[in-house]
Amino acid sequence: MRVAIVTVGDELLVGDTMNTNAAWLGERLDERGVDIERVVTLPDRVADIARVVNEYRAEYDAVVVTGGLGPTHDDKTMEGVAAAFGREVVESQAVLDWLTESGGYTADDLAEGTADIPEGSRLLKNPEGVAPGCVVGSVYVLPGVPSEMKAMFETVADEFAGEVQHVASVVADEPESALIDRIADLREEFDVTVGSYPGDSVRLKLQGAEDEVEAAAAWLRERVALAGPE
Amino acid sequence: MRVAIVTVGDELLVGDTMNTNAAWLGERLDERGVDIERVVTLPDRVADIARVVNEYRAEYDAVVVTGGLGPTHDDKTMEGVAAAFGREVVESQAVLDWLTESGGYTADDLAEGTADIPEGSRLLKNPEGVAPGCVVGSVYVLPGVPSEMKAMFETVADEFAGEVQHVASVVADEPESALIDRIADLREEFDVTVGSYPGDSVRLKLQGAEDEVEAAAAWLRERVALAGPE
Repeated sequence: MRVAIVTVGDELLVGDTMNTNAAWLGERLDERGVDIERVVTLPDRVADIARVVNEYRAEYDAVVVTGGLGPTHDDKTMEGVAAAFGREVVESQAVLDWLTESGGYTADDLAEGTADIPEGSRLLKNPEGVAPGCVVGSVYVLPGVPSEMKAMFETVADEFAGEVQHVASVVADEPESALIDRIADLREEFDVTVGSYPGDSVRLKLQGAEDEVEAAAAWLRERVALAGPE
Repeated sequence: MRVAIVTVGDELLVGDTMNTNAAWLGERLDERGVDIERVVTLPDRVADIARVVNEYRAEYDAVVVTGGLGPTHDDKTMEGVAAAFGREVVESQAVLDWLTESGGYTADDLAEGTADIPEGSRLLKNPEGVAPGCVVGSVYVLPGVPSEMKAMFETVADEFAGEVQHVASVVADEPESALIDRIADLREEFDVTVGSYPGDSVRLKLQGAEDEVEAAAAWLRERVALAGPE
């Protein structure tokens, strides 16, 4: 299963807000064996959201969109996602029922637009807030507030599934350039994918079938200068 | 000036690494008055990098690419950027000169591929490391290690410039939905753009000409319940 993550918000583009939502979603999807092919951040503009969501839904098995939900003027996501499908946003009876029955709101309490989701979409209730999410085709629309996004994602997490790979990491206290030959030997010897992430030390991340990964990690630990515990 | 930021790395997609580079670059570009139109994260694959860099360089005034530099097998960025221009990567005499003259390396010390950058590109020296960056057309290629990325960006920061807007923030201790009418009045009364960012409280970010922004902020502070200092 190949997925793209779309995060919406000018505050993310200018670095006012760190994109912790994308990292959290990436980690959760990866744990489920899903391949994350793209993470993109878009401005709060209908045309940009419509264009990118439309492109990604054609290309990937699912698209997870977060941010830009709610009734204020800069919340453009529902309209953008609707436009990606050539639809309108409409006031949803399912949303109204949810908000009035379980939320304790009356229809008069709600700001205009609160119950609007793309025509023909499935409501995702928000366990932590008032802004509804939805599913349209293969596009999942979640709020941007992290607690709400996480709680809502858990209600649909089972709809994301792939082949879970085993992972092991070996942290080497050597320059990355010195490790190249051993990495090449490792990749020849074992059927694993190897990621090499330099920082103060170099983290080598091995992924594949459990037996193969553990054998490769053991092989590597005997051949590199291991970084001590921090 | 409209810019896209491209961050390359599987570790970013799966949430192993928080994308602090994108936030830092977004903040620095925004300070310089540049509009950040896209932030995207791509896997370590030549075809994906080539395709997205090619699309973005056609659409935006500049593209800043970070990550995936270096001589290991999963460093695909130089090749991807070269392919976006229909070029090859070639060993660069300018890179070799820089590494041997100021880095104290001899050509034999260097791992194969260390001096490879896209044909016809301009070298960006790395003040903090061995991996060179480069500029090809309007595409700036920087390392992924944050200290190296930041130091290299500063060497080209002056090449990014736009109209700097004045910014003020007002933090309201009210539900976002309660503020909608006042935000609408504010937007009618003053020539400012307004971002509304809900969390525990709601941060309203005002942007525009200094006089207008300060007048709008004063107007707003008289009309909302201000959140106290944290």
